Amino acid sequence: MDMETSKHIGPITMPRPLFTPLVEALPATVPFVGPEALERRSGIAIKARLGANENNFGPAPSVIAAIANAAPDVWKYCDSESHELRGALAENLALMPEQILVGEGIDGLLGLTCRLFLAQGDKAVTSLGAYPTFSYHVAGFGGHLVPVPYKDDREDLQGLMAAVKKHRPKIVYLSNPDNPMGTWWHADAIVDFAKNIPDETVIILDEAYCETAPSDAVPPLGFALPNLLRYRTFSKVYGLAGQRIGYIFGESDVIAGFDRIRNHFGVNKIAQIAALAALKDRDYLGKVIDWTAAGRAEIARFTNELGLSPLPSGTNFVTVDCGRDAAYAQAILNGLAERGVFIRKPMAPGLDRCIRISVGTEKDLEIARAALADTLKALN
Amino acid sequence: MDMETSKHIGPITMPRPLFTPLVEALPATVPFVGPEALERRSGIAIKARLGANENNFGPAPSVIAAIANAAPDVWKYCDSESHELRGALAENLALMPEQILVGEGIDGLLGLTCRLFLAQGDKAVTSLGAYPTFSYHVAGFGGHLVPVPYKDDREDLQGLMAAVKKHRPKIVYLSNPDNPMGTWWHADAIVDFAKNIPDETVIILDEAYCETAPSDAVPPLGFALPNLLRYRTFSKVYGLAGQRIGYIFGESDVIAGFDRIRNHFGVNKIAQIAALAALKDRDYLGKVIDWTAAGRAEIARFTNELGLSPLPSGTNFVTVDCGRDAAYAQAILNGLAERGVFIRKPMAPGLDRCIRISVGTEKDLEIARAALADTLKALN
Repeated sequence: MDMETSKHIGPITMPRPLFTPLVEALPATVPFVGPEALERRSGIAIKARLGANENNFGPAPSVIAAIANAAPDVWKYCDSESHELRGALAENLALMPEQILVGEGIDGLLGLTCRLFLAQGDKAVTSLGAYPTFSYHVAGFGGHLVPVPYKDDREDLQGLMAAVKKHRPKIVYLSNPDNPMGTWWHADAIVDFAKNIPDETVIILDEAYCETAPSDAVPPLGFALPNLLRYRTFSKVYGLAGQRIGYIFGESDVIAGFDRIRNHFGVNKIAQIAALAALKDRDYLGKVIDWTAAGRAEIARFTNELGLSPLPSGTNFVTVDCGRDAAYAQAILNGLAERGVFIRKPMAPGLDRCIRISVGTEKDLEIARAALADTLKALN
Repeated sequence: MDMETSKHIGPITMPRPLFTPLVEALPATVPFVGPEALERRSGIAIKARLGANENNFGPAPSVIAAIANAAPDVWKYCDSESHELRGALAENLALMPEQILVGEGIDGLLGLTCRLFLAQGDKAVTSLGAYPTFSYHVAGFGGHLVPVPYKDDREDLQGLMAAVKKHRPKIVYLSNPDNPMGTWWHADAIVDFAKNIPDETVIILDEAYCETAPSDAVPPLGFALPNLLRYRTFSKVYGLAGQRIGYIFGESDVIAGFDRIRNHFGVNKIAQIAALAALKDRDYLGKVIDWTAAGRAEIARFTNELGLSPLPSGTNFVTVDCGRDAAYAQAILNGLAERGVFIRKPMAPGLDRCIRISVGTEKDLEIARAALADTLKALN
């Protein structure tokens, strides 16, 4: 061995091998900077974590116990077919297991969906300001994004349909209820929209927040089309964001297509066990839904009291119209950040007058309320 | 709502939307059928799980405790930068954090690497019969695989180099020690090989089994080239296969490229915590390495005693030459499966005379020994 092991090898000056032309052209941006990274950069500890629409009530005690019980078994790779979990989901959803794909959270599943359908140059229609991770994956596979502005703080179904008819995209993305605004459409409108999308366009219906939505906002489980894929997650009401597990349901021929490209052993074993336990704990689910509704009401109450205008929400967050321009909303967000309250805000023109506060525990929300009152006082 | 929610919606007969031309052309194969799936298909319960090169000794007690302690926190998304874990790895490896990428196991990282470097039609050189998941990802991104036969049950460095010089691939894949044969090259040979690979070809050096290899098989940590990426995992000696966490180290400009396409919040939070705990428990690591060596010796002893020829191994498995043809080795594998012992075997011509038995606990290996003796008696 004639070379030395140096303590910190420095940067190498020789040219690196080239990425694909597609990747070389991609910007070095990330969809989100996480709260831990924000803490490291600002040096300010987060006292209330209300920016990522997590479930601050945590997973069920039964789920915590299931994770602890499963820990000695993590030396085993996961069941690549997620057999037990898919069976339980099939039972819950009144579907066949073949109609369900379990994957590494909706983020991972959105990436796979783009890879499955978007060849370079293919188009994808989405709302301007909708979920950035979808747009990130579209760009990452060389797709062309066609953004449609929101209308009255809701995704504009007519506008999306017009864009689909005009651009004939491979994918149209719609979330219901929607993130970042928290608004929703009645199930009839969603069904009508989906039925009128041309067969060759895949509809990604992101239902990450469906459990906390009004029941008439969610199309029946039996509503299916060959080009409709519905996305759900254990990251929100089930409190398992850190476990990275979600699922798609749709037509079995399409679901089977994912098997050609997915990382078959990619879902972690504890996530499968935790998700199964979460699914079985209907009591706790009910409690989280109640707590979420109470949290939304509390956010609406105190933001209203402080002179802001909370929007109606079908999700686990409340988007709040700050009544002025984007700079003012950003100043409020910054003021909260300085006071240890992590929230996020919509960035698209028109939506950017708002901030978005996730539901949290009573303590979280009291911290947020006090920080907001303080911030508004300092700003006005 | 005018449609009905049917109990099991049947297959839909309308045409499904088309996948990309690339995906439409992919076969519906999977790299591996997992042991749980094998159990479901055969109806035979697995008594000794010795086919996936897992760590049957399990994770450290300190790691099990760390997982249980972290369970209440799984409502939080992971730190997208794996800051703490990368810091600990950097310390351990005498590297800078910027030279390390943490991802969802080597499987996931291989997929990302293919996506980063392989445009459709680009070539990748690997050994014929080497890790199928790499080949799966190459095909999945439209790459052309150039396979080079093993020589004397080792990856053929000269043959791989000749193929690289002839085909000018974007990627060459090499594992050291190797799976499925368990053999290895001296570090000097690996370093010499890597230095002579042209700059534009990325070298994937898969070191999944490096911790159990002879120390002179592993190139120094400070050995770096702009086109060299080294892959390591928490799935083997650390006993965290089910957690899906591994890492790459290489030149920081290349590592940064992954940030353009990776699923930033894709590593699960508990995996990060478990990996950090595992890294800190040096005592347990030492024990697993000792137990693994003892397990290899025991597999070599009993297979030899039963008239078969174990190959030398630098890994947590022993590949065993059954002395006849592929059909005979397959019959032995089948006989073991019927007796509840899950193993795998190399499939490439020339290697397919062998079976591959993972190290397990004393009890696992006694079950395997008895089943093998029984099988050989039935076959001869």
